[in-house]
Amino acid sequence: MKLYGYFRSSASYRVRIALNLKGLDAEHVSVHLVKHGGEQFSDNFRVVNPDALVPALLDTDKGLDIVLNQSLAIIEYLEEKYPQPALLPTNLADRAHIRSLALSVACEIHPLNNLRVLKYLTGTLGISEEQKNTWIQHWCVSGLAALEQRLAADKRTGDFCFGNRPGLADCCLVPQIFNAQRFNCDLSGMPTLMRINQHCLSLAAFVNAMPMNQADAE
Amino acid sequence: MKLYGYFRSSASYRVRIALNLKGLDAEHVSVHLVKHGGEQFSDNFRVVNPDALVPALLDTDKGLDIVLNQSLAIIEYLEEKYPQPALLPTNLADRAHIRSLALSVACEIHPLNNLRVLKYLTGTLGISEEQKNTWIQHWCVSGLAALEQRLAADKRTGDFCFGNRPGLADCCLVPQIFNAQRFNCDLSGMPTLMRINQHCLSLAAFVNAMPMNQADAE
Repeated sequence: MKLYGYFRSSASYRVRIALNLKGLDAEHVSVHLVKHGGEQFSDNFRVVNPDALVPALLDTDKGLDIVLNQSLAIIEYLEEKYPQPALLPTNLADRAHIRSLALSVACEIHPLNNLRVLKYLTGTLGISEEQKNTWIQHWCVSGLAALEQRLAADKRTGDFCFGNRPGLADCCLVPQIFNAQRFNCDLSGMPTLMRINQHCLSLAAFVNAMPMNQADAE
Repeated sequence: MKLYGYFRSSASYRVRIALNLKGLDAEHVSVHLVKHGGEQFSDNFRVVNPDALVPALLDTDKGLDIVLNQSLAIIEYLEEKYPQPALLPTNLADRAHIRSLALSVACEIHPLNNLRVLKYLTGTLGISEEQKNTWIQHWCVSGLAALEQRLAADKRTGDFCFGNRPGLADCCLVPQIFNAQRFNCDLSGMPTLMRINQHCLSLAAFVNAMPMNQADAE
């Protein structure tokens, strides 16, 4: 397998954690989102992913190369192909709960603070750096506060988002908290998230997936 | 089952289609996103969904009421609980392909044109109506163009996103095209998407899920 990613991409970080939790090896190919006008827009990479987004996973299926896009689709694929250790619980309602937490990060928080969105805000709309930072903090803090409320109130929450084993929701939560901290978000009212984040970061699978520990880190 | 939704909510529309495709009955509870300062922010609804977002599905599991959030988590739950007719193919790479198309809509297009995001842009950032419309069109058109490219190039594309049966990706595509048309996006360069949309809208499952055909439509 090859994982096309970028050290600081939060969606690439999710897949790196999932690969590590499952003990799977992948060659990491760096697609620099800033240099050379954004390598994700190059003709070479558009063949891999017309969306011009990382991550993308290249795998072989019945001897043929296949390319998969979208971090959550990639993680579900890994879960189906390599079921153990499982990243989703077995009970249907629990599975939906964990997917919902993961999607809350992937659909409600992260897309708003994507590089291309921030570029549109500062470029096309001409907002200031201060307005940009307020925007980032607004979506991070409101989105994470809703997650805090759900996880704090749910009996299924343990050391991790679901009980005492890391899974799909943790793969999404930890990179989002990393982003929030990078942009100086105030997470002081989120003890449950902070506790889960700390538990995750005590595991090599999460530490080895961190942006600063990638070969293309700057 | 109860589906908390709003006629014009694109994520609610996705779940309505999925329920219809599977022939499942649900009581539809309207949560008006505009009236009364937004009913999704009411204390009553925050008990159902602290994220203050529709849709939410109430179901019973082992005699207990459970509430599920996030449209794609809800549809995956329906798929696991009521496998036939299937909304996902059986082959793992094909499943990832379809999930990836669905997530491209749910993570790359729709979150940017959400009501609360548009409110932040016009309210807090004070952008004009014209700038708002350009913003909406920008993300709709660029996101749908990437989907067009992928679907047009893929041999698995048929009358629907995957072969000749409607599924998860169609549940996401049709509401997104509805939104795009509502905001006068230029979709003329997207014959594959238009063709699939037309096939879907020849089916009662899609027509009955349309915003204009809901009890709370205005």
